[in-house]
Amino acid sequence: MRIELINTGSELMLGRVVNTHQAWICRQLADRGCPVRRQVTVDDSAPAIVEAVRDALGAADLVVVTGGLGPTRDDRTRDLIAALLGRPLLEDPSVWQHIQDLMARRGRPVLERMRLQARVPAGARVLPNAHGTAPGLLLRVEPNAFRPGGGRSLLALLPGPARELVPMFLEQLVPILRNDLPLRPDFFCRTLRTTGLGESQIEDMIAGPLREQCAAGLDLAYCARVGEVDVRLSATGPAASEHVRLAETLVCRLLGDRVFGFDEDTLEGVVVRRLAARHLTVALAESCTGGFIAHRLTNIPGASAVFPGGAVTYSNDAKQSMCGVPSATLAGQGAVSPQTASAMAAGVRTLLGADMALGVTGIAGPGGGSEAKPVGTVYIGLATGEGVMARQFFNPVDRETFKWVTSQQALDMLRHALDAPAPGEAAPGRP
Amino acid sequence: MRIELINTGSELMLGRVVNTHQAWICRQLADRGCPVRRQVTVDDSAPAIVEAVRDALGAADLVVVTGGLGPTRDDRTRDLIAALLGRPLLEDPSVWQHIQDLMARRGRPVLERMRLQARVPAGARVLPNAHGTAPGLLLRVEPNAFRPGGGRSLLALLPGPARELVPMFLEQLVPILRNDLPLRPDFFCRTLRTTGLGESQIEDMIAGPLREQCAAGLDLAYCARVGEVDVRLSATGPAASEHVRLAETLVCRLLGDRVFGFDEDTLEGVVVRRLAARHLTVALAESCTGGFIAHRLTNIPGASAVFPGGAVTYSNDAKQSMCGVPSATLAGQGAVSPQTASAMAAGVRTLLGADMALGVTGIAGPGGGSEAKPVGTVYIGLATGEGVMARQFFNPVDRETFKWVTSQQALDMLRHALDAPAPGEAAPGRP
Repeated sequence: MRIELINTGSELMLGRVVNTHQAWICRQLADRGCPVRRQVTVDDSAPAIVEAVRDALGAADLVVVTGGLGPTRDDRTRDLIAALLGRPLLEDPSVWQHIQDLMARRGRPVLERMRLQARVPAGARVLPNAHGTAPGLLLRVEPNAFRPGGGRSLLALLPGPARELVPMFLEQLVPILRNDLPLRPDFFCRTLRTTGLGESQIEDMIAGPLREQCAAGLDLAYCARVGEVDVRLSATGPAASEHVRLAETLVCRLLGDRVFGFDEDTLEGVVVRRLAARHLTVALAESCTGGFIAHRLTNIPGASAVFPGGAVTYSNDAKQSMCGVPSATLAGQGAVSPQTASAMAAGVRTLLGADMALGVTGIAGPGGGSEAKPVGTVYIGLATGEGVMARQFFNPVDRETFKWVTSQQALDMLRHALDAPAPGEAAPGRP
Repeated sequence: MRIELINTGSELMLGRVVNTHQAWICRQLADRGCPVRRQVTVDDSAPAIVEAVRDALGAADLVVVTGGLGPTRDDRTRDLIAALLGRPLLEDPSVWQHIQDLMARRGRPVLERMRLQARVPAGARVLPNAHGTAPGLLLRVEPNAFRPGGGRSLLALLPGPARELVPMFLEQLVPILRNDLPLRPDFFCRTLRTTGLGESQIEDMIAGPLREQCAAGLDLAYCARVGEVDVRLSATGPAASEHVRLAETLVCRLLGDRVFGFDEDTLEGVVVRRLAARHLTVALAESCTGGFIAHRLTNIPGASAVFPGGAVTYSNDAKQSMCGVPSATLAGQGAVSPQTASAMAAGVRTLLGADMALGVTGIAGPGGGSEAKPVGTVYIGLATGEGVMARQFFNPVDRETFKWVTSQQALDMLRHALDAPAPGEAAPGRP
């Protein structure tokens, strides 16, 4: 089955909005065994949309289009596609009623132009939108006159806003595709999330041992981002799940505790979960990461149970007043030193009465480096009830990447410190 | 001129990496008057890449392809395109020398497979890569056999990593395109960055007054994201710059201080710049934003001059121990109250000896709401030498959006407090 995805929106082509729908939809379909073959972005203009839809229908079994279903003059997808397919637009009374009800619930006026959203191309199936006014639309294009050889294609139009698109995709479109198109039930996929190793290092460690399984149909892929690499194992067929599970066990054994999680896990999510399971709390003292580690932890619902708070100690005075770093340490060893990192961690742990604490200090750049301590130098201190230690890292990258990589290293130090399994927990490396 | 962009990478089609190159390249070209007409993403497979390049050459004057130039077996773009165009690959000795020199400088071994990157399709122009091994390649496709009617197209192959792509694009490709393709010299574009108003509110305020200018060739576009809307003004022709400047002045007058900056400005960048210009410092006490405001401020190089630090006070204990919020306030008015927000701001201002401070407390959800204070309730306190005040907001959105919107509101309160112009500064609304 060939799937194509079209994202519409002039703001995307002006480059002022990053296309996050692409990754999300591609992932949903790939993890169900049907990767998107081609993704296209075009602006809101009629020729661009019509051309993209015509081209996609000329090749694909399923075409998913996002955006352009709203009530403004830029929202032309519905009308353009109805015209392209030669279908009249008919008002669906239940959709119009839904729009009126939704506006009433929100205490907002019903504008006449909203009624455009109740117009449905003849023969289309309406996908009700619980979170907005514009419904999704599903059209069976049969026979598909755009495709050499004809046949039948499915065309799904989804609203642009994520809060409307995501539930509609998961709750309505996926079940339909399961029945209607072969979203392969015999496909199985597992993604192992790792940090601390590069892609080629991982390849050296696992490609050989997995060679036989790959020859037998296991698909092995890597997705490298800065500071983490995903190992994706997938297979198709009656024994797919067993096949992937066997490979997963092998990779976990080979990579050990470099595997921090699976599939949708994040490093901060794993750390919060592990802390919660052990009824432990962590405090933070951040200098060069400037609050980014706190931000990552507090992105996880339930973080408040394990994270009392943190200090962002950008200045030396703040390191003293918030974490009690001795001025002698700052003057003698410097703000970027293992001693300061340790004192920050120990100080904030005491201040907030936490079980554990991280202290992070370094030189993010672009300024502030020296010959002895060049831009990229980092020290991360870890304080627990058993004492304090600090490690040195070197991340000579741009400022934003620096904060990301350093936060990965700090969270990973914390994860390792939590790795000694408590009773009832999985063994290290199987979070 | 028609431009198409092709991003290659299986990690993009698996949806595990967000395609940020798309927005960046689209923006570079759009802001030079040549928006990308169609952007396509495909995986690393030979059929997908060949099909995408062939289709793009069939329609475009300029095709930009990113990714697939490296030394691994997934890097097939160069070979596939050479084959598609019927050009032999010839080793370029200067490229091979550059690869060896770069590895030597980095103290890394030269691997034989790296030599593949020195192979250049006959007739291609090499774009040297100062930050990596794989050069960019520029091919003149003339006559273009893929395009009905023939003609001539330009095909640019750029490396995937951003630190290699960005300088190569700006320093090498843009100057070439200026000479070689009409990157319109008579195009002028200005983006006004606003916060605090919705897209339709802005349209109501400016579309009427700009009607005449739009009829005379001014292009007016909106890019709405959560918590901010860009107003993009552009024009082409000998008077383009004057035309846009006039419109800009008018929009600035109509929107007043809702305009926080221009073009590449960010709200945090404007706030840091304004603080620095006035030699003021700001401290933060963050509860529900969990360090995100500190993260945004410290993304700006030079933030250390205006930001001594902040407290992330997730727990009530932390609000007391770090900011000195009285326990009576927490017990009486609650952690989410104007009194607590004010006390947090005043406390952290004193603790860190800052000129100004923000205190942010609210209920991000999904848990923690009540009838009196539902999920989304926010109070932001602002402390200065003149006293403390607090404002209420209501952001009933998902957790991540909540943090973003709340941080926008807090930074914007700070910006307004800084708006009284100091001597030599621009008037409010013209940051």
